This record gives sequence, C-alpha cells and structure tokens, in this order.
Amino acid sequence: MSTTVRIIGIDPGLRYTGWGIIDAQGSALRYVASGRVAPKPAMELADRLCVLVAGLEDALAEYRPEEAAVEETFVNADPRSALKLGQARGVCLMTPARAGLPVAEYAPNQIKKAVVGTGHADKGQILAMVRRLLPKVGEPTADEADALAAALCHAAHRQFRMRASA
Amino acid sequence: MSTTVRIIGIDPGLRYTGWGIIDAQGSALRYVASGRVAPKPAMELADRLCVLVAGLEDALAEYRPEEAAVEETFVNADPRSALKLGQARGVCLMTPARAGLPVAEYAPNQIKKAVVGTGHADKGQILAMVRRLLPKVGEPTADEADALAAALCHAAHRQFRMRASA
Repeated sequence: MSTTVRIIGIDPGLRYTGWGIIDAQGSALRYVASGRVAPKPAMELADRLCVLVAGLEDALAEYRPEEAAVEETFVNADPRSALKLGQARGVCLMTPARAGLPVAEYAPNQIKKAVVGTGHADKGQILAMVRRLLPKVGEPTADEADALAAALCHAAHRQFRMRASA
Repeated sequence: MSTTVRIIGIDPGLRYTGWGIIDAQGSALRYVASGRVAPKPAMELADRLCVLVAGLEDALAEYRPEEAAVEETFVNADPRSALKLGQARGVCLMTPARAGLPVAEYAPNQIKKAVVGTGHADKGQILAMVRRLLPKVGEPTADEADALAAALCHAAHRQFRMRASA
C-alpha cells in the first residue's frame, strides 16, 4: 500500500503565478486547493516579487505540501522576456525549497505528455484533462490548471520512479 | 547638514553574487563591508537560490543598510543565459525589498558613468575608481567591486535628487 503525498505545482509568472495542490496515493489523485498570485503591475519589480513569495508562503503554510513541482519556463526567443520570466521563476523555485520541500522541475512538453499523453497538447486539452483527473477542481484559471498539471506530472513521475525501484 | 545613509549594492549572479555596503553622507563616502555569495554549482538550482537569499539576509542583518541598489542585468543575446541570470536577479531584488529596504535598479552603463565618468568603462577602471573612492576596501573581488559601484552610483543619484528637490 502506498502512502499519500501532498504535492504543490507552480506555474511561475510575474503577472500571474498559478499554484495547485493535490494529494496522490499511488494512482489515486485528489484535488486539495489552487489559486493564483497576481502582483499589481504598477508596483515596483522588487515588490511584485515579494508578493509572489508571500502568496506562495501562504499556500505552503495553509496546506503543508511535502513536495513541489515547478514548470520550466519556455525559453522565449526574446532575451528581455526570458529575463523577466526568470525573475519570477527564481522566487518560485526558491520559496518551496526554503520551506524544506524537494523541488522538481518539468519542461512544458513533459507536463503535457504526462497529463494529456502528447507533448503537443494545447491549453484546452490540458484544462480538460485536469478537470477529468481532478473532478473537484471546478473552474480553474489557466494558471491554476497549468500548476495542477505540473503537480499531476510530478505524481506520475514519482509513481514511475517508485515502481522502477520496487 | 546631510544625514548618513547606509547603502547596500548588489551585483546578482547565480555563480557569484557580490554585495557591498557603504555609508554616504552628502559627498562623503565610507566603505563598510563587502563580500560575495557563491552557491556550489553542484547544488540544485532551487537550493542555490536559497543560498543567495541566506547570504544576502546575513549581510542585511549584520550591517542594517537602509537602501539597496541592484545592478540591472545586461541582457545577453542568449535567452537561456538571460533566464538563468533572471532567476538569480529575482531573489536579489526580492530579498532587500522583503527586509523593508527601498530597492533602486541601475543599468551597467549608468553605474559606469556615475563611478568612472563614462558609460564605456571597463572592469579595471571600475575597480580602480572603487578603490580610490573607498580606500579601505582592500582587494575586492570583481563581484564585490561591481556591487560597491552600484552602491556608489545610488549615493550619487540620491545626492542629485536631494539637490534637485532642495
């Protein structure tokens, strides 16, 4: 019998950072909570990053997940956009690690493959599969759905690793 | 008579993040401390970012600077490098802001212009001027010198703003 692990998935973004928490017990999955942090664009960059940290710390404190999965940022062709996304991503990786959680990173196509079955799935397909796998999710925003997809991907990879080492 | 302000300058980098603290009283400048944080490259990215935060928090707690100046990252042509640098930069901007300091950002050529007098100064010229303006600095690493240069740039800009508003 496998024990339950609580996973937080995070989809980093300076405008919207999505987070989503699931419980995984073997192949049984359960939706726990999700949300998104949206620092006001008019704020200074440093303060927006603080809002992201505080939002994620609140979710960590309230739901106490044990492992984290962060979506790897799609490397945009524009270095300026990559730098901006990197700034949000840095604090999104750091915050769960500082809280003592192991942090796994997954590329967008790994997540799509784990959740939908193909690395080329679109946003609509991801959302549909997230709702099918986690019926209690309700009407998540795209950022929440992406974060939950990262958590689902991590649950699948964990299970695979456990089977491989069994 | 102008009051003394303690400024921390930060030069963000995932490999080496330099920090340098000065006291500025009008045009009188005094070296306080400097150092660099160097997370082990073998560590996971999330843990390296935690080491950067912890190193900066130590410096903030020990020397209690009141304002922060962070060097704007040179946007590399390579989006992958920009993303990496962005991650380090995100936590370097967030950490002093979270400690309650106002955080100013300066472009590399602004810093060069303020410290050396020209936006096209090289590393050697910056180091020479940092040592001339802050004789007690000793033999700083390049990262410490760049961080101190950011602090010096902020001191100059502050003074300019104060004069402008006088």
